[in-house]
Amino acid sequence: MTFGESVTGAGDKILFTPGPLTTSRTVKQAMLRDLGSRDHEFIGIVRDIRRRLVELAAAAPNAYEAIPIQGSGTFAIEAVLTSTVPPNGKVLIVINGAYGKRMAAICKVAKIDCTPLEFPENAPPDLPQIEAALAKDATITHVAVVHCETTTGIINPIAAIGEIVSRASRVYFVDAMSSFGAVPVDVAKCHIDYLVSSANKCIEGVPGFAFVIAKHDTLLATDGCARSLSLDLLSQWKGLEANGQFRFTPPTHALLAFHQALVELEAEGGVEGRGARYKSNYETLLAGMRAMGFTEYLPRYLQGCIITSFRYPNNPNFDFEKFYGLLNEKGYVIYPGKVSNADCFRIGTVGRIFPSDIRALLAAIRETLAEMDIKL
Amino acid sequence: MTFGESVTGAGDKILFTPGPLTTSRTVKQAMLRDLGSRDHEFIGIVRDIRRRLVELAAAAPNAYEAIPIQGSGTFAIEAVLTSTVPPNGKVLIVINGAYGKRMAAICKVAKIDCTPLEFPENAPPDLPQIEAALAKDATITHVAVVHCETTTGIINPIAAIGEIVSRASRVYFVDAMSSFGAVPVDVAKCHIDYLVSSANKCIEGVPGFAFVIAKHDTLLATDGCARSLSLDLLSQWKGLEANGQFRFTPPTHALLAFHQALVELEAEGGVEGRGARYKSNYETLLAGMRAMGFTEYLPRYLQGCIITSFRYPNNPNFDFEKFYGLLNEKGYVIYPGKVSNADCFRIGTVGRIFPSDIRALLAAIRETLAEMDIKL
Repeated sequence: MTFGESVTGAGDKILFTPGPLTTSRTVKQAMLRDLGSRDHEFIGIVRDIRRRLVELAAAAPNAYEAIPIQGSGTFAIEAVLTSTVPPNGKVLIVINGAYGKRMAAICKVAKIDCTPLEFPENAPPDLPQIEAALAKDATITHVAVVHCETTTGIINPIAAIGEIVSRASRVYFVDAMSSFGAVPVDVAKCHIDYLVSSANKCIEGVPGFAFVIAKHDTLLATDGCARSLSLDLLSQWKGLEANGQFRFTPPTHALLAFHQALVELEAEGGVEGRGARYKSNYETLLAGMRAMGFTEYLPRYLQGCIITSFRYPNNPNFDFEKFYGLLNEKGYVIYPGKVSNADCFRIGTVGRIFPSDIRALLAAIRETLAEMDIKL
Repeated sequence: MTFGESVTGAGDKILFTPGPLTTSRTVKQAMLRDLGSRDHEFIGIVRDIRRRLVELAAAAPNAYEAIPIQGSGTFAIEAVLTSTVPPNGKVLIVINGAYGKRMAAICKVAKIDCTPLEFPENAPPDLPQIEAALAKDATITHVAVVHCETTTGIINPIAAIGEIVSRASRVYFVDAMSSFGAVPVDVAKCHIDYLVSSANKCIEGVPGFAFVIAKHDTLLATDGCARSLSLDLLSQWKGLEANGQFRFTPPTHALLAFHQALVELEAEGGVEGRGARYKSNYETLLAGMRAMGFTEYLPRYLQGCIITSFRYPNNPNFDFEKFYGLLNEKGYVIYPGKVSNADCFRIGTVGRIFPSDIRALLAAIRETLAEMDIKL
């Protein structure tokens, strides 16, 4: 096994999902150690992780801060919403999928005032409507949007929305869970105050924590906003700054894996190199699926290369559970759909997978369609 | 390497801490796989983990539920406090150390009414005072206490407190973070409604999640109490019950390691076998430290076998940072103290460590004292 090699053939199924993903063997092997959470070596690794994350966000080291948060990506989203929005704050949530809706759900249960601005799942948010919503309601303090809505795979125009938010002098929060590390983001140019992503997405680590890239000055003004001890972003940052340690036990092994994943990301050519491989994966998938007669849910110009929603084939023999199960038996794990108004399934093209893996998946899909007696 | 063998000698330092701990090589090797979070095999593993946890709590399968929560132990503590205490609820928190205080801090930031009942750190809570506090204030709905206060290592009388709480018909919450798996607990006999522990404590998994053992009927009555989406205990349970899946991405690798850790716990003879090894570790440590002239902070009859606080030696040459650093260089990681009113350091006797490791630590301490020119 060489550095960063795919695990294809190691016996486990290949994951064509939005995460947890197939990771390199070397990333997993980095977990074969027990480091103390106060250990100098571990503290150095965490420091290097944080430095690399700020660099990946194209940010100047003193302008932005990288803050890991234990738990899943949703925990970090909740940390931003519930510990940086002041008691009298109000969040405009731009929604065109399930993850936008989830932000609204977080606000609702935490009793944070929010205005959901909903758009169809197969279209980008309408910019004039966002501008108008901000102009109309001066009590809106924050704007939140999802970069790549994993519901469909759409890439939302975070730079253009950032322009509007910045002109209106509101705080800007981007959920870049499934895009960060593979789709270039310049946080300062996009006027982003908080960006959230997770260990087990395009950086190709294992699940166990997520992270926030926070604009230093915005973050420091949030004293007293926290509604939770565990999910208090500013306190988490203060703790890490004070002595390099987490306030509460960190997932040491997942952090070791993540550090290795960041080294491998750099070796692949950073965001550009990683994005290029995912684009090849996506192009290979799209050509193969179209050749078989599948159609995508989104028009191509809206589609990112992270995950693609395909419509169920119009054939009485198609049954998703059966299709999923037969592919699973062959060693290929795809993902159910999440679109509200259409029957779809999803195929992810991220993780330690290559066009050769996509071609193997396509062959398995072809075989499965034959087994199910489906002609497209 | 054989099943469950210690990693001693594998090159990493040995952790004499309260967690993250030194784990077996086989536990870490269980993480060399990427399973999808919706995968049938993974779902089966999670189901088996939950079943085994209920069994470890000596509970009947239908009377109690095991619910893993992503994040550190504090996240699960916060989940119980903030998602099961009703809006008009009030928590009596029995405190004799930092972790009791942390529960009060969670309530404070979440604006949950609470009454801290503080006792000295070197004494067990006074039972008549608890009884009187409940008798005096009918608005108290919940009582919370820490089983093994990692601050000192004291074992609090959770069965006797449970008797009082049950007679007073209040809900009973025990933080058994650092004791569960090594100190026998019968949740039903102790009248416990919620018990919390973590993956990287006496069960000897890796950090990444914690878990709650919840009394079924108490849990089901908490609808509408949640103040958070991520840390909503009842919703987490409902999600797992519905399809075996977590609501939000689980730390798949940490869960695979934990399952292996539970298998190894069973192989060691369960709670009894594990507790016996920790007791040997503790006895070996205590005899060796006393022989060198160290004294413990706690009287022996209050001390558990999880972690022990030792007083700084009364010698002008003693400097904890230096002592810690010199031991660290030799490959032995001890833990700083947390007692409020005395200078102490702590040595943990839990994790995949054996009396032979303790003897090696004792030799290193002896050597370090000589290097620091300290005669006790």
